[in-house]
Amino acid sequence: MSILVVGSVAYDSIKTPFGAAERVLGGSATYFSVAASYFTRVGLVACVGNDFDAADVELFRSHGIDLKGLETHSGKTFFWQGEYGYDLNDARTLNTQLNVFADFSPRIPAAYQRMPYVFLGNIDPGLQRQVLSQMERPELVACDTMNYWIEGHFSSLQETLKQVDILIVNDAETRQLAQEPNLVKAARKIFTWGPRILVVKRGEYGVMMFHTNPAGALDVFAAPAYPLEDVFDPTGAGDSFAGGFMGFIAGSGRTDPEALRQAIIFGSVMASFNVEKFSLGRLRELTFTEITERFRQLQEMTRFEDFHPNAI
Amino acid sequence: MSILVVGSVAYDSIKTPFGAAERVLGGSATYFSVAASYFTRVGLVACVGNDFDAADVELFRSHGIDLKGLETHSGKTFFWQGEYGYDLNDARTLNTQLNVFADFSPRIPAAYQRMPYVFLGNIDPGLQRQVLSQMERPELVACDTMNYWIEGHFSSLQETLKQVDILIVNDAETRQLAQEPNLVKAARKIFTWGPRILVVKRGEYGVMMFHTNPAGALDVFAAPAYPLEDVFDPTGAGDSFAGGFMGFIAGSGRTDPEALRQAIIFGSVMASFNVEKFSLGRLRELTFTEITERFRQLQEMTRFEDFHPNAI
Repeated sequence: MSILVVGSVAYDSIKTPFGAAERVLGGSATYFSVAASYFTRVGLVACVGNDFDAADVELFRSHGIDLKGLETHSGKTFFWQGEYGYDLNDARTLNTQLNVFADFSPRIPAAYQRMPYVFLGNIDPGLQRQVLSQMERPELVACDTMNYWIEGHFSSLQETLKQVDILIVNDAETRQLAQEPNLVKAARKIFTWGPRILVVKRGEYGVMMFHTNPAGALDVFAAPAYPLEDVFDPTGAGDSFAGGFMGFIAGSGRTDPEALRQAIIFGSVMASFNVEKFSLGRLRELTFTEITERFRQLQEMTRFEDFHPNAI
Repeated sequence: MSILVVGSVAYDSIKTPFGAAERVLGGSATYFSVAASYFTRVGLVACVGNDFDAADVELFRSHGIDLKGLETHSGKTFFWQGEYGYDLNDARTLNTQLNVFADFSPRIPAAYQRMPYVFLGNIDPGLQRQVLSQMERPELVACDTMNYWIEGHFSSLQETLKQVDILIVNDAETRQLAQEPNLVKAARKIFTWGPRILVVKRGEYGVMMFHTNPAGALDVFAAPAYPLEDVFDPTGAGDSFAGGFMGFIAGSGRTDPEALRQAIIFGSVMASFNVEKFSLGRLRELTFTEITERFRQLQEMTRFEDFHPNAI
């Protein structure tokens, strides 16, 4: 199976307490598609400027990512400059230059229009709908968003959510979107708007997934983040998570509760690799054996035995 | 098996966004011992004033808690007044009156001195050692502490930690104690000071446990908090966690890695019940069936299937 992703491809300049990187490949669709490429065929929809480096095109190609939807426009590629302190959950934006991304109007190549899985990266909710209107009844649509769209484009976002199966956001975004501090209640509220699965990213604290099971009850799955001794650069962690999560769903062709749980773990694994180096440094060089090894470590790290009442 | 706990017994006045309670039973040793009483025999060492209510003594007795170590001094019981906003992780202290607790000098009744398990609540590290010096070689010593002792009594605390097997603290305390933002590195550092097991409480994000396995490698266990729709009052959650955790260890008489993991889950279960009502309102009325039911729910909430590489 295959997945379409729409989002940003960018150059980032990043400073963390552990080093700095100048004008390295980044962007939500970049992290997503390289992470997903370990599991499934990916069609990328994005735009870059004519400053975009051939070596970066080659990085996508070497991961089998289909670039028919990657448009090159006259001008510069989206540029983001940011900085992190020791609290790596908190990015400080120093400079944003939208450049060619300012006029991005996603056009879906004919070859992509029947892709069964769709991931709408964090862009204008109106553009997210523009993507969906060009697709032929995808099986599953997942979507990201952020505070900017929640605050300023709420009704447009709600319009998009009507067509979304899985919403993937962080905990602050969940609370802001639902206007509800309690995540369980927030999930119930968001489910009335369209999505039937809510994935809440909580950074170093891991991920929670909420969905309504066939019996109508709320099912909760909680997974920790993979504990690392050296987190180097958190940029792209959320998008790598989404890439691993949706990549596994598309690759396995399964959306049953068991597969969704495994997908969460693969997402966590991809995010954990991503933060070990700047840019795509770690994500680009992985083997599938490394990925499954970390999957098993997360399994070992979370399992516990049944309790038998005669034990005490 | 049985466990000795030393700590505070107090009256609390608490305000949360959901209500208020005046002069209700509280204190670290109170929450700990009632939570632990569902799993094991508990010997309580604390002091109260002569204003201490007979009904509160009866609450301890009705849970089979041994009160030979509960001294009544002339004066008033320790009083704490606090307030929480919608961020229930953040308590604001409005008033603290140590009262008789100011001169607390723990004396261990002869009948307690051979208790195999010991929990040193969050008191002066010097007093924690005073407790241990009166015990006859306990099998396992666990200890809590807080920023006040880390900042102002660091060398005394380190002296205590030499005799401690399990340190149970929250994530901010872990980082502050080890002077290290990364929890994995913090655990390794703390292990050089005495403890061989570190339990890091992370409030709504759950718990992480670190210990060195027989092969010398670092073992990590991560468990989520039980997700509640209505958190009423977080006071005592950490102590209820410790009570469930240590209570299960003492009750089962096991400290192998499998039992430690189950103990973490029972701790999480007791904390989750505790926050559902003010004071001991929920903790005092539990059935063991309710406890094991929530244990199973946490198991269901965290399990995921093995991955077979032919799945994608």
